[in-house]
Amino acid sequence: MSGHDPLTASRRLDILLKHLNNEEDTNNNSKEWRTLSPSQCLTVCTNRDRKWNGYGYKDTFFKFDERGTAFSTGNRYPNFSSKEFHELRPWLEQTLRINLKTVCPAQPSIIELASPNVNHEFYDAIKPQGIMISFAEQDRLSHGHGISTAEIYKLRHGNFARIPDAVIWPETHEQVVAVVQAALKFNVGCIPYGSGSNDVDALECPEEIEKRMIISLDLRQMNRILSLSKENMYVIVEAGTVAQDLEKELRKWGFTLGWDAEMLEFCTVGGIASLRSDDIKRNMSGDLEHSVINFKMVTPAGTIQRNYINTSPISSGPNFQILFGTEGTLGVITELTLKIHFFASQHLYVPIYFPSFHNGLLFLREIAQKKIIKFSGARLVDEPGLQLVHAFNTTTPTVRSIFSEVIKKYYLKKMKKLEAGKMCLAAILIDGDDIVKLKVCEKKIGEIGKKYGGVIAGSDLGERMYFVSKRLPYLRDFLLDYYAISDRLDATASWTNVEVLVERVKETITNTCKAQNIRPRPYIGVRIDHIYDIGASITFTYGFNCRNLGDPLSVLKLIEQVALIEILRSNGSVTHNTSGIGKRKKETFRESLSEPVVKVLKSIKKTLDPTNIFCNQNLM
Amino acid sequence: MSGHDPLTASRRLDILLKHLNNEEDTNNNSKEWRTLSPSQCLTVCTNRDRKWNGYGYKDTFFKFDERGTAFSTGNRYPNFSSKEFHELRPWLEQTLRINLKTVCPAQPSIIELASPNVNHEFYDAIKPQGIMISFAEQDRLSHGHGISTAEIYKLRHGNFARIPDAVIWPETHEQVVAVVQAALKFNVGCIPYGSGSNDVDALECPEEIEKRMIISLDLRQMNRILSLSKENMYVIVEAGTVAQDLEKELRKWGFTLGWDAEMLEFCTVGGIASLRSDDIKRNMSGDLEHSVINFKMVTPAGTIQRNYINTSPISSGPNFQILFGTEGTLGVITELTLKIHFFASQHLYVPIYFPSFHNGLLFLREIAQKKIIKFSGARLVDEPGLQLVHAFNTTTPTVRSIFSEVIKKYYLKKMKKLEAGKMCLAAILIDGDDIVKLKVCEKKIGEIGKKYGGVIAGSDLGERMYFVSKRLPYLRDFLLDYYAISDRLDATASWTNVEVLVERVKETITNTCKAQNIRPRPYIGVRIDHIYDIGASITFTYGFNCRNLGDPLSVLKLIEQVALIEILRSNGSVTHNTSGIGKRKKETFRESLSEPVVKVLKSIKKTLDPTNIFCNQNLM
Repeated sequence: MSGHDPLTASRRLDILLKHLNNEEDTNNNSKEWRTLSPSQCLTVCTNRDRKWNGYGYKDTFFKFDERGTAFSTGNRYPNFSSKEFHELRPWLEQTLRINLKTVCPAQPSIIELASPNVNHEFYDAIKPQGIMISFAEQDRLSHGHGISTAEIYKLRHGNFARIPDAVIWPETHEQVVAVVQAALKFNVGCIPYGSGSNDVDALECPEEIEKRMIISLDLRQMNRILSLSKENMYVIVEAGTVAQDLEKELRKWGFTLGWDAEMLEFCTVGGIASLRSDDIKRNMSGDLEHSVINFKMVTPAGTIQRNYINTSPISSGPNFQILFGTEGTLGVITELTLKIHFFASQHLYVPIYFPSFHNGLLFLREIAQKKIIKFSGARLVDEPGLQLVHAFNTTTPTVRSIFSEVIKKYYLKKMKKLEAGKMCLAAILIDGDDIVKLKVCEKKIGEIGKKYGGVIAGSDLGERMYFVSKRLPYLRDFLLDYYAISDRLDATASWTNVEVLVERVKETITNTCKAQNIRPRPYIGVRIDHIYDIGASITFTYGFNCRNLGDPLSVLKLIEQVALIEILRSNGSVTHNTSGIGKRKKETFRESLSEPVVKVLKSIKKTLDPTNIFCNQNLM
Repeated sequence: MSGHDPLTASRRLDILLKHLNNEEDTNNNSKEWRTLSPSQCLTVCTNRDRKWNGYGYKDTFFKFDERGTAFSTGNRYPNFSSKEFHELRPWLEQTLRINLKTVCPAQPSIIELASPNVNHEFYDAIKPQGIMISFAEQDRLSHGHGISTAEIYKLRHGNFARIPDAVIWPETHEQVVAVVQAALKFNVGCIPYGSGSNDVDALECPEEIEKRMIISLDLRQMNRILSLSKENMYVIVEAGTVAQDLEKELRKWGFTLGWDAEMLEFCTVGGIASLRSDDIKRNMSGDLEHSVINFKMVTPAGTIQRNYINTSPISSGPNFQILFGTEGTLGVITELTLKIHFFASQHLYVPIYFPSFHNGLLFLREIAQKKIIKFSGARLVDEPGLQLVHAFNTTTPTVRSIFSEVIKKYYLKKMKKLEAGKMCLAAILIDGDDIVKLKVCEKKIGEIGKKYGGVIAGSDLGERMYFVSKRLPYLRDFLLDYYAISDRLDATASWTNVEVLVERVKETITNTCKAQNIRPRPYIGVRIDHIYDIGASITFTYGFNCRNLGDPLSVLKLIEQVALIEILRSNGSVTHNTSGIGKRKKETFRESLSEPVVKVLKSIKKTLDPTNIFCNQNLM
């Protein structure tokens, strides 16, 4: 099926060479030396242990106990599961005006799902090949959405106009080729599925226009590690491997992907590559493209792969990385060769308070540009963002309040110019094997911080800053029970543009809420997640009480649209951390492209997928 | 002419926003703060001071004096210009069997150049706009080739089937758009010209098939620095700016491009981007794509540029970097936003001898992967490569020979297992502002070297290793005078593949020479130029005496073809250091692509340049 497989190409070269040389060639297709092949099949991951109408695991959620104290269930997450959060309720009552007595329960199930539209010729073609397929409602529904607030809200209170007609779990690259070729032959639409953890509506099915059967292609049965080369520091994996599972395996060998993110928990490596999720990256690994050495992508026009050049550094001709970030609109990634790094045994978070957001930014800029210390992560939250971090505090109230008083006095004494609402907290993450060296590094970071009025926050705050963002989706779903709706958006900006962009976007969100008669004013927290020489990424987390709104989703959509436009108008890039463009951001993304580039994208689509088998309509 | 200019897009957003908000917008298109705009016009660079039939400047060449000692003329290069090279002649006599009495003089000029094919409608369209144009033979010839051995040989002893019919020097982006649109309207072919310093035959005109007038578009009048942002660490320049000129300007402000290469001397930044020349990169700057934040490219279908997102870090949607490395086949780059770095004032080369190539590689791999020290460059030469470095020695013979004896004894004593022909020399380049820290770093490098039997070569050898490769083209041209022809090829390979690839390519070159009755066996030197976590780049420099060959160029071509195929068969990538694919490597490059990718490239070409205005036929 692949138009140009390596063996044929190899034979062609041999013939060419014989012709040139008049010699017998050795035909020695030497493979890499000393390559390990663990070929370990990882634990198969399905959606059965995940909530049908919310983010994450069924056993993990927030609840108020009889005294009104928020606590979390389950035992999956250290520092989080089965903990009490004493400051959460008061803070939520104040900022989002939630009321424990005013609840907004989700529907127990979606009443009516359309029955599947089955293309029997297609089914007859793939059935004999032993490819797993399901038409069950629960499978179809769970594959028809991601975890955006809008999608979860629809699951709780509404319905989807269309969901996939069947879910298919291929087990090999060849099965994927067979499915795609059958889809091509019998005119079936196909939406690749990694883990369903995107929050940009990337998996929602096209509605009226799409009359064909739509299949969801769940790659998660393809989760084998095919090869691990310690010498060349790469791993070859099937694309359906969940990043976290792979990471666990790699650590056994002393390696790491160098990635980290809230999404890592569920994401498959293929999903990460196809959505170009920079959320996962750390300063160690660089941009996602730098992590990917090689790949295979099945398209209706054949399989895209590098011949010969399996794992050499590439630096010739056009850069085919255009295929990353195409979000399953052109084909399915089935295999990836990923760069690996040595795993460092020690991690140190260095949290520093700054008297203003401005000073915090100057500090981060110096860390990014001067390269005095080698860091793995850098974050910053503004004062509302810091309140959110504090709300996740799990220390008992007595200890906490005493401690808090001490801290307050201490910092206020040090930060004479502190204005209310202006404080921020930065935290640098450093990795290494030698704790003594990390301590030296910590000291240097403290010295840089001091130049901008920073004071080291000698506590667990740094680590909490990092883990809080990973657990926020659980809080978001919990809040929906109390008429508080929340969402997030992200952007990047040049260093000198960050403050303007932040102020303008905050103002835009606030003004839009005001115009929609939302009271009290929305909560808006700002976080810097990644820093670069040239700028930083910014995440806005916002929420408001929606009890008096007829249609909270349309208000949420309006806020998102005006905020995205404001980001573009402030010379920002419209996405960074979240998983791609999807349908959520495609209009604004389109605005950032020049006309010839739009034409190029359309021509690539036409070349690789002329009949629009990959019909998910993301991006454009 | 651009189908989608930023202002129109901005207006569209404004309208959209007003519609959403029912509000007056501020229409505040805020630009970046505090951006410097030196707008300095750099010295205009033409070809008049360069050789018409050789590499580099007219005033710089090798010569033998009356005693037969090789020396170099001119005063451009420290450590090179007007120096004597006492060991060069004996070495050349031994390895390439040159004979001072057997010379092969170049023709004084090319007798017959075809007169220009002028499209008068096109000329009439651009003339009134005041765009500089020349039909002079000398301009046309100098723009019809690069600096490959084959091209220089043709200039010395043959002719070109076709050269451009005119040379045009646009001065602004708008003039480029005007020229491209006129070419589109009146059916004229166009080949963008940066500096003519590629060695992959990228500038040779298509012959019989191309009946249209062909213009060479020399960008070097577009050499203004448009903006320099110290805060965001970028510089915006016109694409015709010569990288070295830009580097000099940047250093005045304390910055650097972080690039280095033999080509930097003449290359324009646009040429570097369009050929994706990784030659220029250092470990500081990373791959070329990471240096380029933004760009403008004029295509027949319109101007490609990012709207709004001028300088923010980008991490959304497909990666348009596919347009880098397209080698002027789709359009002309007119403007680039480049990342800049702080310039370090101190540089230290740490050269280390190893008893074998294998051990040298293990050392480099550890330097690349363990990241114990931060380095800017890493090189290695095998023993023949080391001989070449030694041949560039400029110390007087007495001092040299005494010194050499001392060194020899010292190292032989230390390296007990040393086999003849197996030694290699590695050199790590480290940068910084604090010489004490660099010395600490040097010590660490020495310790890593020691693990692999390395001995620090306490001399100027490290620096010489770096500069020798920059002056090799002058030596290559000089050797042509004495019937010695030489060339180079490069590749990349995984770490564990480097040795196999090197052995196989050397064997292939040697066997091919043998089959062609070339005596003595060819000189082949191997150099590692860049190192990565996953592998390294390899440059083969080879030469032989061609006095008895009827057609040295066809033999050279044969060697190149079999070597390139061997590189592919050894799982290497067919190019790295040289400037791109061009016409020289397009067949083998094609072999490294899968069929759907070839289709994608063709569809992009068809979309952006349907009438093949950019007719240079590079890449494919």
